[in-house]
Amino acid sequence: MSPPLFDHVCVVGLGLIGSSLLRAMRAARLADRTTGFDLDPAIGTRALALDIVDEIAPSLRDAMAQADLVILATPVGAVDHLCAEISPHLKSGAIVSDVGSVKTGMVTAARHLPDDVFCVPAHPVAGTEQSGPEAGFADLFRDRWCILTPLPRDDAPYRAALSRVEQLWQAMGALTECMSADHHDLALAITSHLPHLIAFTLVGAADDLESVTEAEIVKYSAGGFRDFTRIAASDPVMWRDVFLQNKDAVLEVLGRFTEEVALLQRAIRWGDEETLTAAFTRGRALRRAIVDAGQETDAPNFGRDR
Amino acid sequence: MSPPLFDHVCVVGLGLIGSSLLRAMRAARLADRTTGFDLDPAIGTRALALDIVDEIAPSLRDAMAQADLVILATPVGAVDHLCAEISPHLKSGAIVSDVGSVKTGMVTAARHLPDDVFCVPAHPVAGTEQSGPEAGFADLFRDRWCILTPLPRDDAPYRAALSRVEQLWQAMGALTECMSADHHDLALAITSHLPHLIAFTLVGAADDLESVTEAEIVKYSAGGFRDFTRIAASDPVMWRDVFLQNKDAVLEVLGRFTEEVALLQRAIRWGDEETLTAAFTRGRALRRAIVDAGQETDAPNFGRDR
Repeated sequence: MSPPLFDHVCVVGLGLIGSSLLRAMRAARLADRTTGFDLDPAIGTRALALDIVDEIAPSLRDAMAQADLVILATPVGAVDHLCAEISPHLKSGAIVSDVGSVKTGMVTAARHLPDDVFCVPAHPVAGTEQSGPEAGFADLFRDRWCILTPLPRDDAPYRAALSRVEQLWQAMGALTECMSADHHDLALAITSHLPHLIAFTLVGAADDLESVTEAEIVKYSAGGFRDFTRIAASDPVMWRDVFLQNKDAVLEVLGRFTEEVALLQRAIRWGDEETLTAAFTRGRALRRAIVDAGQETDAPNFGRDR
Repeated sequence: MSPPLFDHVCVVGLGLIGSSLLRAMRAARLADRTTGFDLDPAIGTRALALDIVDEIAPSLRDAMAQADLVILATPVGAVDHLCAEISPHLKSGAIVSDVGSVKTGMVTAARHLPDDVFCVPAHPVAGTEQSGPEAGFADLFRDRWCILTPLPRDDAPYRAALSRVEQLWQAMGALTECMSADHHDLALAITSHLPHLIAFTLVGAADDLESVTEAEIVKYSAGGFRDFTRIAASDPVMWRDVFLQNKDAVLEVLGRFTEEVALLQRAIRWGDEETLTAAFTRGRALRRAIVDAGQETDAPNFGRDR
């Protein structure tokens, strides 16, 4: 058996993603030793009880001491001050990575780190609407894409660090791809951030409609509403940080969306059949491509709707 | 074994819903004989080949001749002229029902029918994004709600007709409920029509974003986008009709939605953490209620996201 990819991995933040990382690394024997840290000591205790991590560090400083890979699995609003805080305590040659849904913030946070530490921002495009260490599972990243947004440095040690992080994700079953942080943030604004914002908004609009009761919304949610509630149940703090950190890209795609809404609104008001039919025909090809790419199941018994 | 609920049922429109109806009625032996009719003769031929119907009528007039229950399973834009057209050919005592997602239109269409024919508008809140007779299945309506919106008439024969339609849906596994057509159309505007409109719009906005490729949208769709593509793949003509027929209710809920979007847009622009967190916290309770009511599964392996 080949030796583990890393001697000592430290995961900061033991929620859904952090705990899934620990489970996946353990399942594939990717780390000789793992340390966990969470700002909330109760979550650390729960992670230890789940037996997914070797030890919980009493402080961030202690957590860093031996780690050759540190993965920040916190809401994205925390990575900047975390990088500043851990910087003096990192081993020379350590790699610092993350899993955040916005990547420009992590690239900027890298300025706090010394030159002999290698910052490799990463984003596994995977998750569920659940939170907490109990919600994680080892297969969360399998067949999902993990996007790496390397820093603009091209020295050999950095290239080696990037390659090791890429191997880690592949060993957990993910597909990997590299791109700039800016491009990542725009691509995810449309494929992830805007859908979440819209889902949160729809749930809010439903909540405000006095004449239709919550019981009715629940009953008739199979008409389409329920498809939105899954992602609208995602972690509020995580998503607040995403929208604040990716403000420009989100406002850009949101602008496109509201322009499109206005066009369809007018088409309904004017009874413009052609515009509506044309707009409603665009979805089928994209759906087919997503199902064919294995990014979604297409089971008729699950996908009940109307 | 008790005799079938109906002697002769005629289904007009043999797509996803019409063909599922025929399958479900056959599975539960609810009709002694079934006749199908579709404007497109090729679809009739396909339905016959699937062996889900006893015969395909050569014309609407022929289809009506013997039927004691006629179910219109066409796009909602067609029910008005269909009622006018079938009216002279219906047997005395026949029941005319439908399955449309907008109910005020069917209530209005009932004006074409003679007094000795009983119009019982119905809407099974079930479906998939698939179309055509091959896409139907007998269990489509199981554990889903079917909403009946009776006409404002209270004679004993009408009450008996209403009760028989209710029994039919219950025998196919559906839960039934009665309400006014107006209330139905508002409740479905928020639980079904608006979600579809938003999903269609999001897919359109993604399509227009030159800087992010379709391949990227497909790859990273697990970030949330894919949840919307399922319903955005629904039948364009059916949905065009829904929005035109339910214009007022849809414009009302769409107005609420765009007001809510504007509030969140400003909160992002201003970095207003509290408004965002509060808005994002509302979804969890509603999701839990939908899962608890059995209107959705909550399997973590399916519901992958972020």
